[in-house]
Amino acid sequence: MKFSVTILGSGAAIPTIERKPTAQLVSVRECAILLDCAEGTQIQIITFRKRLHKIKYIFITHLHGDHYFGLIGMLTSMHLLGRQKELTLFGPPGLKEIIDIQLHHSKTTLIYPLIFKTVDADVTELLLDDGRITVTSFPLKHSIPTWGFLIREKPLSRGIRKDFAGNHDIPIPEFERIKNGHDYIDDKGIVYKNEDITIAPPRVRSYAYCTDTAYFEDIIPVIKGVDVLYHEATFTHELADNAHEKLHSTVLEAATIAKKAGAGKLIIGHFSARYRETEALLKEAVDIFPNTIVAEDGMEIDI
Amino acid sequence: MKFSVTILGSGAAIPTIERKPTAQLVSVRECAILLDCAEGTQIQIITFRKRLHKIKYIFITHLHGDHYFGLIGMLTSMHLLGRQKELTLFGPPGLKEIIDIQLHHSKTTLIYPLIFKTVDADVTELLLDDGRITVTSFPLKHSIPTWGFLIREKPLSRGIRKDFAGNHDIPIPEFERIKNGHDYIDDKGIVYKNEDITIAPPRVRSYAYCTDTAYFEDIIPVIKGVDVLYHEATFTHELADNAHEKLHSTVLEAATIAKKAGAGKLIIGHFSARYRETEALLKEAVDIFPNTIVAEDGMEIDI
Repeated sequence: MKFSVTILGSGAAIPTIERKPTAQLVSVRECAILLDCAEGTQIQIITFRKRLHKIKYIFITHLHGDHYFGLIGMLTSMHLLGRQKELTLFGPPGLKEIIDIQLHHSKTTLIYPLIFKTVDADVTELLLDDGRITVTSFPLKHSIPTWGFLIREKPLSRGIRKDFAGNHDIPIPEFERIKNGHDYIDDKGIVYKNEDITIAPPRVRSYAYCTDTAYFEDIIPVIKGVDVLYHEATFTHELADNAHEKLHSTVLEAATIAKKAGAGKLIIGHFSARYRETEALLKEAVDIFPNTIVAEDGMEIDI
Repeated sequence: MKFSVTILGSGAAIPTIERKPTAQLVSVRECAILLDCAEGTQIQIITFRKRLHKIKYIFITHLHGDHYFGLIGMLTSMHLLGRQKELTLFGPPGLKEIIDIQLHHSKTTLIYPLIFKTVDADVTELLLDDGRITVTSFPLKHSIPTWGFLIREKPLSRGIRKDFAGNHDIPIPEFERIKNGHDYIDDKGIVYKNEDITIAPPRVRSYAYCTDTAYFEDIIPVIKGVDVLYHEATFTHELADNAHEKLHSTVLEAATIAKKAGAGKLIIGHFSARYRETEALLKEAVDIFPNTIVAEDGMEIDI
């Protein structure tokens, strides 16, 4: 089942032709989730042939403009395009006020339900469990309150082997019991062990999104063993002073977090506009964490 | 001397790949003026190789998002890029509150002076006279308070004919007197009539920017004889009911205003996203006002 992330913006605060500021679109279990929404995100979605109306949840990490200035435009475009279905927005306190004041001055009342949920705790918190996925927020270390998000599939039940189901006239109520791990006893009293007649569900996968943040080992227990980690890497380590002053990470630091967390793969992004070429960025990462890729706008990565 | 307008966005509220929402960059007498600032305007400025730091004045027509959602991103980019010089922003009441709340939540204090001037009267008003140009606001007819802007060069003084200046040893203080229309009397007492030794200054030019608005004849006296008129034309006249309901203009109405105002040239824009082709739009206009051009993103028009 599809679980992928599309990079809509891989740059830091100053947009360039090649790299727009931060946004990502995650597709998981038939559900589209937007992570951050910088200026121009709705255009990036059109450019990369994704669909605005499919987005069901939006998560905003913090109130620096390069992570949310595109939100109000996207919300009003959804309104103008006739969206009816509910949209749930998770974000910092203050975000609702910013949206409301702009809707007020344009005399706009959104025609779809916009549910706002505040992420305001200094703790790791389960924000969403919709039966198919969970999303957990966890504090990062930045100049204003900022959270990372961990998206995790929920386990599916076991699948009944097709050859067995085809050869046995299993009553409908028994299907759920077998999927949940029970043995099956047919009408002649023959017992079929669950492990013989079912196959294990696919492994649950997870994606962690960590931006913006200084090097912060506190996140390691939360993201331990994640399949794919996106970690900001605004500067090369040569500019570590710059990074530390602004509470950003260097590439080396992002790779160190990936290594210590035992991540399966690392995506680095949120690059300062000064980096036109990415060879040096990639090299700095792979020396520490080989399975690293450099985010590019429009890139789609399978989890 | 250069007086031109670059279309940064020629579309209406819903952005498309081809047409971004409204913004224009006017270059006049070495001064760069931004008219409206939709989402993505700063990217359009980079794309069309214009310079963000040259902008001295910004004028916002109204608080519909497709005319100002890019403003906060542009203001903070100027800050991050180290702008020092003053920027003056003319806009509706409410705009300052919208900017301030976003700066507050990101803990940003702009490092350059941002002067905010409210356009809040229901009257035609001289907003700016910087010695080189004047900018006048005038009410339009839309669903929320909206103004048009008229940019006009100020007259230059007369120029002294080069052949005359080269053959006569004119004292410096006399130069200004001659430029201001006085005759010149040389040290032998010979009188040179001003009209014989000077040339007339170039004709003053003007540009009127009218968006968003329903058909509104009240603007005609203000923009009478303007060299170039930009007038919104969201729909063809076939969809006049749509236009009237939303207080927008049809192409036919825009052309009628241009004709009645005796404009030199008409630029139509702010097209609904439904119009992929512009032949029908242009035809509807030229039947009434032949000297019409269709705005396209990136187009630069000399006034």
